[in-house]
Amino acid sequence: MTKFQAEIDVMPKKEILDPQGKAVTGSMKNLGLEEIHNIRIGKHISLEIEAENEDLARQKVDQACKSLLANLIMESYSFSLRTV
Amino acid sequence: MTKFQAEIDVMPKKEILDPQGKAVTGSMKNLGLEEIHNIRIGKHISLEIEAENEDLARQKVDQACKSLLANLIMESYSFSLRTV
Repeated sequence: MTKFQAEIDVMPKKEILDPQGKAVTGSMKNLGLEEIHNIRIGKHISLEIEAENEDLARQKVDQACKSLLANLIMESYSFSLRTV
Repeated sequence: MTKFQAEIDVMPKKEILDPQGKAVTGSMKNLGLEEIHNIRIGKHISLEIEAENEDLARQKVDQACKSLLANLIMESYSFSLRTV
């Protein structure tokens, strides 16, 4: 079994309003950081997974995202894997 | 002015207990994904920034992280920049 580290991003879909991101974009202006726009806030998840090979690890992480980590109605996800 | 896209990860520090991650690690077992361990959950933030060059953009994003996006007592952050 090989150990992999997965780094997953779960973000609100583009069509979905992100009120938290909007609020933080407003706060940037108050901090004098007017150059910063279009903030979107999601989740970052790191996890360790043991699998025979990278393909199987990828399948398992995909399953974890679909069934638990992301709400596919409102969020999309992407991830990268590396051996540890 | 060049436009950059920043992808920021804000994660609970290693020394800090992450109860949300612990709970989700438990749920993985119930889903039959026992191969998944050590889940940690933080934030992923994407934003757009306009700056003269990459160095200045990097400084501004760093400032935004320090002053607003991350709580440096409990969280650490990292980010990458790319031109858009």
